[in-house]
Amino acid sequence: MLGQMQSQPLLISNLIVHAERHHAGTEIVSRRVEGDIHRTNWGQVAQRSRRIANALDALKLGFGERVATLAWNGYRHLELYFGVSGSGRVLHTLNPRLHPEQLVWIVNHADDRAICFDMTFLPLVQAVWRKCTGVKHWIALCDADKLPADSGIDGLQSYEAWIGGQSDTYTWPEFDENCASSMCYTSGTTGNPKGAVYSHRSTLLHAYGAALPDALGCSARDAILPVVPMFHVNAWGLPYSAAAVGCKLVFPGGALDGKSVYELIENEQVTMAAGVPTVWQMLLGHLQQNGLKFSTLKRTVIGGSACPPAMITAFNDQYGVEVLHAWGMTEMSPLGTVCTLKNAQVALPPEEKLQVRLKQGRTVFGVDMKIVDEAGNEQPWDGKSYGDLLVRGPWIIASYFKGEGGDPLRYDAAGRGWFPTGDVATIDADGFMQITDRSKDVIKSGGEWISSIDVENIAMAHPAVAMAACIGMRHPKWDERPIVVVVKKPGAEVTRDELLKFYDGKIAKWQVPDDVVFVDAIPLGATGKMQKMTLRQQLKDYVLPGL
Amino acid sequence: MLGQMQSQPLLISNLIVHAERHHAGTEIVSRRVEGDIHRTNWGQVAQRSRRIANALDALKLGFGERVATLAWNGYRHLELYFGVSGSGRVLHTLNPRLHPEQLVWIVNHADDRAICFDMTFLPLVQAVWRKCTGVKHWIALCDADKLPADSGIDGLQSYEAWIGGQSDTYTWPEFDENCASSMCYTSGTTGNPKGAVYSHRSTLLHAYGAALPDALGCSARDAILPVVPMFHVNAWGLPYSAAAVGCKLVFPGGALDGKSVYELIENEQVTMAAGVPTVWQMLLGHLQQNGLKFSTLKRTVIGGSACPPAMITAFNDQYGVEVLHAWGMTEMSPLGTVCTLKNAQVALPPEEKLQVRLKQGRTVFGVDMKIVDEAGNEQPWDGKSYGDLLVRGPWIIASYFKGEGGDPLRYDAAGRGWFPTGDVATIDADGFMQITDRSKDVIKSGGEWISSIDVENIAMAHPAVAMAACIGMRHPKWDERPIVVVVKKPGAEVTRDELLKFYDGKIAKWQVPDDVVFVDAIPLGATGKMQKMTLRQQLKDYVLPGL
Repeated sequence: MLGQMQSQPLLISNLIVHAERHHAGTEIVSRRVEGDIHRTNWGQVAQRSRRIANALDALKLGFGERVATLAWNGYRHLELYFGVSGSGRVLHTLNPRLHPEQLVWIVNHADDRAICFDMTFLPLVQAVWRKCTGVKHWIALCDADKLPADSGIDGLQSYEAWIGGQSDTYTWPEFDENCASSMCYTSGTTGNPKGAVYSHRSTLLHAYGAALPDALGCSARDAILPVVPMFHVNAWGLPYSAAAVGCKLVFPGGALDGKSVYELIENEQVTMAAGVPTVWQMLLGHLQQNGLKFSTLKRTVIGGSACPPAMITAFNDQYGVEVLHAWGMTEMSPLGTVCTLKNAQVALPPEEKLQVRLKQGRTVFGVDMKIVDEAGNEQPWDGKSYGDLLVRGPWIIASYFKGEGGDPLRYDAAGRGWFPTGDVATIDADGFMQITDRSKDVIKSGGEWISSIDVENIAMAHPAVAMAACIGMRHPKWDERPIVVVVKKPGAEVTRDELLKFYDGKIAKWQVPDDVVFVDAIPLGATGKMQKMTLRQQLKDYVLPGL
Repeated sequence: MLGQMQSQPLLISNLIVHAERHHAGTEIVSRRVEGDIHRTNWGQVAQRSRRIANALDALKLGFGERVATLAWNGYRHLELYFGVSGSGRVLHTLNPRLHPEQLVWIVNHADDRAICFDMTFLPLVQAVWRKCTGVKHWIALCDADKLPADSGIDGLQSYEAWIGGQSDTYTWPEFDENCASSMCYTSGTTGNPKGAVYSHRSTLLHAYGAALPDALGCSARDAILPVVPMFHVNAWGLPYSAAAVGCKLVFPGGALDGKSVYELIENEQVTMAAGVPTVWQMLLGHLQQNGLKFSTLKRTVIGGSACPPAMITAFNDQYGVEVLHAWGMTEMSPLGTVCTLKNAQVALPPEEKLQVRLKQGRTVFGVDMKIVDEAGNEQPWDGKSYGDLLVRGPWIIASYFKGEGGDPLRYDAAGRGWFPTGDVATIDADGFMQITDRSKDVIKSGGEWISSIDVENIAMAHPAVAMAACIGMRHPKWDERPIVVVVKKPGAEVTRDELLKFYDGKIAKWQVPDDVVFVDAIPLGATGKMQKMTLRQQLKDYVLPGL
């Protein structure tokens, strides 16, 4: 027996129709690449997204064809979110920070047909455009008079000229909600980048889930500043949730320094901001150096990497801003968990509360998670047991674009597929998850797991240590034993035995590393993460003490 | 091109699985029919809902078969919500306030196979059970030792005995999210009652939408008291939203008097309560008579009928409780609009703000609405133009059970179906909708519409008037002209001319009624609503002045 409710697909065009009907006058404010502040509203964004749809029709781009962007957070990028996906094409947000060769590989792998780029990235586009053989249309996100006379790029046109001649009348098509809406590549540590392909359905369900009070809590009364880039998992889906609730959006463009971000927050009465810890570090630095306060900011959502305790304390105690630690992945649209406290945690004393806030948090309804041992057995939610973190839900990936990397899922006894996050985590009795390590970095010693992050954090707490990396070394009896590779601070001294003694009482005896290796530098990747695979390679002749 | 996200149906079982995994210890508190306070939690509710699923399997009830309830708000009713729908059967919530003959008709029309009832309703069940020919199983929601020795009902068993012998291990089945999950009959003014059949998809989308910050705003930190009955459109869907966010639920059972509701709110630290104005009137009366205050209640959601201004003012100003005016229908799952203010309205002076709060509010994302004239032309959103209110969305009805009443939808030029709500409304530029009349009561005079409610409210404001009904009378030139039918307060006097003069300056001249008819009583229906059709019948020989 079927229900007898209206059969209506969940489509991204519904979002912009709703935002225009109910919140036409609500502002969208952008700091442009040119440096000035630009003001528009949901009504204008809706109108211009219909012009985009007509312009794509005029280019004869087919249903499902990819339109890529190389752009900062701004109103034109927002218009493309709705115009491209709403008309049935697939929005492919490119990461301009990638190496040009990798960018070319991704553009060609995705079969991008058009690329819209901010003028900041003109040199990058000039360097790569001839290699992007499938791209037929290059569009610079600028006014017609800002287009360089001789860019060297065949057929380059300005965005404003491109959409300016189009009608703003357009009927959004209705189609299967499982059609692709957008895509984003993720670069693993091994192999080629892989594309996550979102659907209209997954995007709308995520928009609902992310806007819930215990997730990001989005209301029409909010002014939201997505510092997290729109090329990074759709700015955590905020543009979609914002359209669903009709809030004001404030876009920082490429100016992510503390002063610029602070000015935007104050001038535009921002109530919520979302981004990675490094941006908040710059913002806090600016506040502290200039003795400033926030007058409207109520909460910050911090994700992308673990948030340092000092940052949570500074926001909460010094500035009265609630920090929401969040966790997700490109493969998860991205929201998995948000660390919104329950009543029991609200009632805790400050120090214990901080320990909870350091966790990545509880799942949003729609996401299910579990931790499993190597055999796939589920581990208890006791805050101590840990295991590989697996997730499932309607906004979590089933497979990568073109099937790259094969079937990524792990199947349980009931045949349900779970996506392995590559993280190792604990989950406590109240459902708060905490990531303790990356699966590939965890050290398996005598059947027990040792968190490389725990070992590193203790070493980093020593006054003489600048950087520390914990890696596992093969051991005939214990399988693996941890060692810690350390870079000393300039002029500081610490011996192997002093550092090992420093672990006393901070960690179980069997978790204390077997050795300390001092090096001049630890290899870092493009995003500042330690490259442990390279480090292991450098230490391939190392032998553990006593072997 | 399809998205590559996990294909997972939106099922009601997902809700209870999530609530158990993340909020097992969160309390569900019920005032039982027996009068005592019963405490359980999401973990126990989940376990017992699995026992129900096993018990339904043991009865060999097939997929999609109807299991009905005749019950107050309480934990057993909540368990049935998840056990019945989660296992693929359809939960049919019966309204015990209906006339027994109507109840029998509905039970038989719905092909109910089992009925679970609160002991309060034993006399009702004893009166009707033999006529419910399709019902094979009668289950009393009580302990085994509370079952009357001789109920006279064949095979009657107690709920606790029924589920007590069952295992609490059960794997929820996975099936098409468009399958029916639950149903609820609505009784129109004409014809037989008609069944609205909700799907798992519509229920879950509604659960997301209703929990959003600008809708009911449900968080794990809330304790929600649904005073609105679970037999009335699933208590506005609150049990589902509550499971999605894992909040505490507090159920009042059958005790809806001011004292009982107040005690529950205070003792259980309720933060949000939802119900119809009459219940809040009793609650406010109790507070005022006893000089009481609320210590935890933050907001009340008021729907079902228009909320009087004095009630909004009392809650807001005297008790610091935010009133959320909401509007919906059985055919809408039920949530259509909630009157959550935007920044522009928050900034208004108190009197203007009150005028906004009296409106039914803005749509939740997922619902689209429009107002149209008799020819179906959309009317502007200017707060003045009015028209028939039409709605569409994935949790709005497409047709009634068994196709009763034919196709209820009206189709626009693009072929999209809209459900006519039967209300006449205005919508202002900020999207706040206000119901001005029922479509069948509106008076069409000279091509313009006159709101019968406006005319009645003015008459009711006269100190000598106890009750007023405005109805339209045939007129050869103007099609219809309004008259007002008035019951005077005992001992009070007012003449026809005095009352007509009372309209001066309060309403446009052409909207002022042509006549006043004094009567001893206006016919009222079972729910206290004026029966205008009967009134017109009584006045069939009336002739307008000057004709």
